[in-house]
Order: sequence, then C-alpha cells, then structure tokens
Amino acid sequence: MNLELTREFIDNLRLQIENNQEGEVKDLLLELHAADIAEIMEVLSLEEAKYIYLLLDGEKASDVLIELPEDDRRRFLNALPPEYIARQFIEYMDSDDAADILGELDEDRKKSVLNEIGDVEIAGDIVDLLEYDEESAGGIMAKELVSVNENWSVATCLKEISRQAEDVDDIYYVYVVDDDNKLKGVLSLKKLILNSTSTLIKNIFNEDVKWVKTDTPQAEVAQIMEKYDLVAIPVVDEIGRLKGRITFDDVMDVIREEAERDYNMVSGITGEVEASDKVWQLTRARVPWLMVGLFGGIMGAQVIGAHEASLQKVPATAFFIPLIAAMAGNVGVQSSSIVVQTLASGVRDYTTPWQKLFKQLSVAFVTGAIFSVMILLYNLIFSDSLGLTYAVSISLFIVMTIASVFGSLIPLALHKLKIDPAVATGPFITTLNDVLGLTIYLLISQLFLDFI
Amino acid sequence: MNLELTREFIDNLRLQIENNQEGEVKDLLLELHAADIAEIMEVLSLEEAKYIYLLLDGEKASDVLIELPEDDRRRFLNALPPEYIARQFIEYMDSDDAADILGELDEDRKKSVLNEIGDVEIAGDIVDLLEYDEESAGGIMAKELVSVNENWSVATCLKEISRQAEDVDDIYYVYVVDDDNKLKGVLSLKKLILNSTSTLIKNIFNEDVKWVKTDTPQAEVAQIMEKYDLVAIPVVDEIGRLKGRITFDDVMDVIREEAERDYNMVSGITGEVEASDKVWQLTRARVPWLMVGLFGGIMGAQVIGAHEASLQKVPATAFFIPLIAAMAGNVGVQSSSIVVQTLASGVRDYTTPWQKLFKQLSVAFVTGAIFSVMILLYNLIFSDSLGLTYAVSISLFIVMTIASVFGSLIPLALHKLKIDPAVATGPFITTLNDVLGLTIYLLISQLFLDFI
Repeated sequence: MNLELTREFIDNLRLQIENNQEGEVKDLLLELHAADIAEIMEVLSLEEAKYIYLLLDGEKASDVLIELPEDDRRRFLNALPPEYIARQFIEYMDSDDAADILGELDEDRKKSVLNEIGDVEIAGDIVDLLEYDEESAGGIMAKELVSVNENWSVATCLKEISRQAEDVDDIYYVYVVDDDNKLKGVLSLKKLILNSTSTLIKNIFNEDVKWVKTDTPQAEVAQIMEKYDLVAIPVVDEIGRLKGRITFDDVMDVIREEAERDYNMVSGITGEVEASDKVWQLTRARVPWLMVGLFGGIMGAQVIGAHEASLQKVPATAFFIPLIAAMAGNVGVQSSSIVVQTLASGVRDYTTPWQKLFKQLSVAFVTGAIFSVMILLYNLIFSDSLGLTYAVSISLFIVMTIASVFGSLIPLALHKLKIDPAVATGPFITTLNDVLGLTIYLLISQLFLDFI
Repeated sequence: MNLELTREFIDNLRLQIENNQEGEVKDLLLELHAADIAEIMEVLSLEEAKYIYLLLDGEKASDVLIELPEDDRRRFLNALPPEYIARQFIEYMDSDDAADILGELDEDRKKSVLNEIGDVEIAGDIVDLLEYDEESAGGIMAKELVSVNENWSVATCLKEISRQAEDVDDIYYVYVVDDDNKLKGVLSLKKLILNSTSTLIKNIFNEDVKWVKTDTPQAEVAQIMEKYDLVAIPVVDEIGRLKGRITFDDVMDVIREEAERDYNMVSGITGEVEASDKVWQLTRARVPWLMVGLFGGIMGAQVIGAHEASLQKVPATAFFIPLIAAMAGNVGVQSSSIVVQTLASGVRDYTTPWQKLFKQLSVAFVTGAIFSVMILLYNLIFSDSLGLTYAVSISLFIVMTIASVFGSLIPLALHKLKIDPAVATGPFITTLNDVLGLTIYLLISQLFLDFI
C-alpha cells in the first residue's frame, strides 16, 4: 500500500489526537513507515508530535528518530536522560545510525550515553565509528555485515549467515575473508542458493571485488558505487582488513547532499534550507552571500565614481553598465559551474593545465565574438556615438573572455588547494566579474571617448 | 582490485595498440570493468578505441556500449548493420538497456533491428518498454525480475528462482503474485534462506510492499525509493499486474540527472556538457541564456536612456546601478532556488498559497531592511547627496522585496502549470529582476532628486 499524505489525513489525525483516541492513533501508526511518521511529526505541533512519538514502541521509535531533521532530533535528545537514549534508541539501531546520532550530541552527553549502553560490543563498534571523519567512508559505513571464511563450505556458510543475519537487515553480498579477516572477495546470495551445500566457498567466490578504504572521501565512494552499479561496497583498513560496508541508501544520501551543496553555493545560499523553514532560518541562509553582493555593489559605485567626469561628458556610457555587468556575471557563473560539475562527476581528465586553459580561451573567444558582434550591430543602428559603439563591443569581448577564464581557473585552483571549488560559483564569481567588467568597460570607454 | 586510470596506464596501452600487441591488450581488457573500458575509450583516439572495441567478446562489448556517452554510441551504431546490432548487442542486454539504446535510433533503423532479434520474447519485451514515456517508471524499468506464486512452497520457489535467475543479474527481492500476476507482496532472499523448504510462501511474505505505476514520473520514483531506502521497486499497471522493476542504480542515475538539470538551469547552461567537451558543444550550451542576458542588458540600456536627463543632472545616480542590479539578481536567484529545491526534494508542504506568500514577504522584508539600512549608513557617511542617499535605500528595499516575491512565485506558478520550475532560476530571474530593479531605482531617484 502506498501512503498519500493529504491534508484530510493530517486533519483527521489531529482530531483523533485532540480526542485522545489512543487506540485509533496507535493502529494508524502501526501501519506507517518510520519515514512517514517523521514527515507527519514535522507538520504537527510540538505537543501533537510528542503525543504520537510516545505511542511508538522501541524499534519504531528509534527508526523515526533517524528520519527526523537534525535540529529537531538534537532538541529532542537533549531533553532525555542518557540511559533512556542508550536503552530505548541506540541499542536498536545499526551502528552507523547510532554513531551519527551520538556524533550530534555534545561531548559530555555522548560519553554518558556510551557508558549506559549495556552491550560492550555495540558500544565498541560505535566508538570505533566515531573515530572516522564524518565525510569519509569510515564515517558513513556500518559495522553490520555478513562475512564468511574462504575455507568454509556452502552449508557452513548458510548456517553462519542465519546466525549473523539477525543483526543485518539486508544482506546483498556476503564478503569472503581469510583467517586474518582480510578481504579476499565477494559472494552473491544468488550463487550461494544455486550451488550445492558441499561446495567450498573458495571455489565459487568472486575475487574481483571493489572496495574503498576507511579514509576514502564519501564523494569518491559515491562515484565508485555509481560507476560500477554496486548495491554495497566493503570498507577496509590500511592493511586490507574488512572494517564495514556502505550500502546504496547511504550513497543516495551522499549524492543528494553533495548536489544540494553545490546547488546552494551557485544560488548564493548558505546551509540547507527549505521553503517551509522559519523566517529567521531563511534570512540567515541568504545574508552572507548578499553581503558579498553588497560589497561588490559598493566597489562598483566607487569604480563608476572614479569615472564621474567622463560620465558627465557622455552620459550614454552609463546605459551599458548593466549589460556589461550582466554578461560578465553570466559568463563567469557558466564557466565555474561547468568546471565544478565536471569535478563533481568524478570523470577523469587527462589533459594538461595548458590544454585546459587553451580550451577555455577558445570557448571564451568564440562566445565573446558572437555577442560583441551582436551588440555592435545593435549600436550601429541605434546609438549616436560611434566611439561608444566601438568601446562597448571591444569591452564586451575582453570582459567576456576574462570572466570566462577566471570562472574556469579559480575553481580549478581551489580544487588543487583542496578547497571546495563550488565556493567560487554563484555570487562570488558574479561579484568579482561585475567589478572587473565595470573597470575594464569604463577604462576602454574613456580611451575611446577621449580620442574619438 | 581497484583500478587507477593514470596517464601512464593510458600511455602504456597506446603503445601496445600501436605495436599491435593484441594478446596483451586482450588480457588487460579481460580484467577491466565495462565502465572502465568505456572511460578509456573516450580518452583514446577514434582509431584506438575501435581497435580495443573489436577485441571484446559479445557480452562485454554490449556492456561497454551501454556505458558510452549517447553521442558516441549513436554514431557508432549508425555505422553498423541492423542484424549485427540485434545479434551482437541487444540479445545480451537487459530489456531496459536494450530499449534505451533502440530508443536512440531513428524510426527505420529501430524497426530493422527489432525485426532481426531472434527471440520473440526479447523483442516483445523491448517493444512493450518502448511504449512508455522515457521519464516515467515504465521508461526506466526492466522486465527482468523474479516472481513467485503466493501458493507455492519455499522449495518450489527456490527451484523456480534458479530457473528465472539466469536472466536476472541481481535478485534483491522476490515478488509475490497471485494467479493473475497481480502484485501481492514481497519476500526477501534472507527470509527464503532462513525458512524451512516446506513453508508456504503465503505464510511468510510481506504484504506491505511499496510500488509505483508505469506512468509514475521518474523523479517521484526516485523520491519514494530514497525515502524508504529501497534497493528495488516493483512497477504495476492500472489494475495492479506486475510489469517490471526499477533498481537502485537506475534511480542513482535519475537523482544525478535531475540534480544536474537543475544545476545547469541555475547556471545558465543548456543541455549536458563537461569541461572536456568540444569547443562548439561548450559554446552551444552557453549561447541561449547569454542571449537572454544580452536582451536584458539592451532593455536596461533603454531604461537608463529614458532617464538620461536626470543622469546628466546628478551623475552620481549611475554609481548605484550595479548595486541595485546585483542585489535584485542575487535575491531573485536565492528565492527561486529555494523553491525549486524544495519542489525537487518531494517534501510535501501543507500550507496554503497565501501562507506561502506571507512567508516569502516576511523574509523579503527582513532581508530588504537589513541591506537598506547598511547602504543607508554607507551613504550617510560617504555620499554628498541626501536625496540620492534616501533614494538608494528606499529603492533597494522595494527592489529586494519585489525580486524575492517574484523569485518565489514564478517557479511555483510554473510548477502549477506543469512546466519545469527550474526554468525560472538563474539568468531568467536575474535578467527580469535586473530590468525591474533598474526601472524602480531610476523612477524613485527621479522623484527624490526632483523634490529634494
């Protein structure tokens, strides 16, 4: 059954909560997936959400907790005693979710919760995971996986899988290891089912297994899993011992997350926001890059101010200020976005930096030429000043070329310096190119108008 | 083993090709994944790529074909006779890949290839799939899946799975159907392994299965699979009969594809391009939105031209043209991006249109007020004209408010009209707000400078 969360559904639920129809609400919740309950809780008032949450049993309650937005979850957990968090939530969770949630708590509470976990093995797994960088393979992997020894038979394997499978929701692949727990290969469940029980694992497993290291960046993990269409990938340490596995759902989150980050950057938004967020959240997300725009605008005002005399002489010079600024901005954003997206896609590029520069220059020349000629034709027909006509076209060509080259090279340089190249898209590159474009335009105009 | 595609690797391969060391190259290719071979072929010259490709056996050759960029694949297929395409590629492929590739051919060639397929069942599956909209669930699903009847026992099931599994690379889930092939539920391989062989399927399968219809849009399929962490989802027709399944790898492609489309839109790029594409491809991707910018720039020139007299009176008015235009553009892009991203995430919103407008207005007022006051302070210190000082601040407030509201409402309206809301991000909204902002600023300046 697919759920349709309509306004009627929500209104009906609200009425049941108001009338304290505990039985009905409980029945309804039993049928719903944790992700749906979390979504409903976000729409309800805090009181209503609490009412629902307290009706959930331990496992469902911890599933819902994982689905809640980070802010809500933190506020909620900070109101609960550590032993409750350990016993009611953490012990029900997969190690990666448990580590994520503990990582959101402050240091003291994290320690208290860890100390309250009854099962030392579970606590140990979480402590191990907390060591890794959040955005590395170690930071997104789970400890739960099914592994078998290469020397076993299919029968032993099936028995061992039944035992291990209790902790693992979905198996996907069985990893094959040697006596030192070093990863040797992979075995599909299909192969296990299709072979006779006396077959030895070492005769049927696939040695060609893709893996990542605990310190592989998450974006790279996503690229590898996407490229090879992997539903899960094993994670190994420096000497090849099997440490955990990453599944496709974690990677879908990474892809979405990285895409949103780049999208926000090019749109001039800081942090993650949605249209339904609070006014102060939406404002806070907008102000930083608008400050960059304001600063650029003030610089622009000073650049024009420095040319006040020529502006007074030929006021028509001002007509083309928005055109130059807009074209410089647009070309810069285009160039930087192409570079950022190419880097994000993980497609390798075998050309040298000089070849890259030459390519970008060629595109810039062609594009610049097209639009310079168009504006030249326009001005030849509509403008009175031949000097201004030439000045605008020549400036546009130079400005578009420089904007394009800057737009390509700055993200590439940032990438080399291990800084997120997406910083140099959107408002940053627009503002830089606006100011540069204006300066070039006004200088060239002055030259032309002085001499012609 | 993980492959590292270095320049040395490529250079070495080139040398082997040049020396016609067929055996060595063949051995190397045997070890490589199809995705890697496709990547290598893109770096090589056309002649070298052909040399490699002809050394591949049928199955690997068709795997590589799927991984090639669409342009290259089409050019390549157009050079081959239909019977070769049918026998060497199509018959080795999953139905969804086969349909995608046939869909890229022109009508006549498609028909010829279909007629050359020996196995009527395969041809029939492909013809069925070609009926669906490319961006719907039907368009991305594969016909290959494993399904069992609810009345069977685990033993019968395992036997039937062995039979069906030949066609299906990865099983993930076994779908349970009734005698009419209507979807009843799902069964995990894990459950199948962990139950005794005499158990009846109807006693162990899970009725709570998520599904989509053949006409569900692909973006919605991706949202559902992401939300519920599904590795595969069954696709049913209008009356609930099982028609196919969509796997996580198809959905990763959809997520990436949709994110790239939105990113390109906000960056002013048409179509899909990468930094390594040819100069004319990169230029073609840039020109359309730059045309919009040029058009906006010319409109801007005319707006300013209409106020030439006041500009001559107070040339300082021109100083703030870039500031107003930049702020209007940035605010507009921010607003539209937040809306587009919220729509893309599939998060449902239960507020009325009036509540939405009120929220956007509030954010616009707060943001507008912050920056108006900042530029007011700047001008009170640095500007000589009190009239201009007030005019700039008041204009900035009004312009930012209008830009913000437009930026939010236009994508929402497009979405209502079933047009991709992402069209109204980036250069479109920037240009619109530039021209509007300029008009408002110059009108208000004129008012103030006339009366003060």
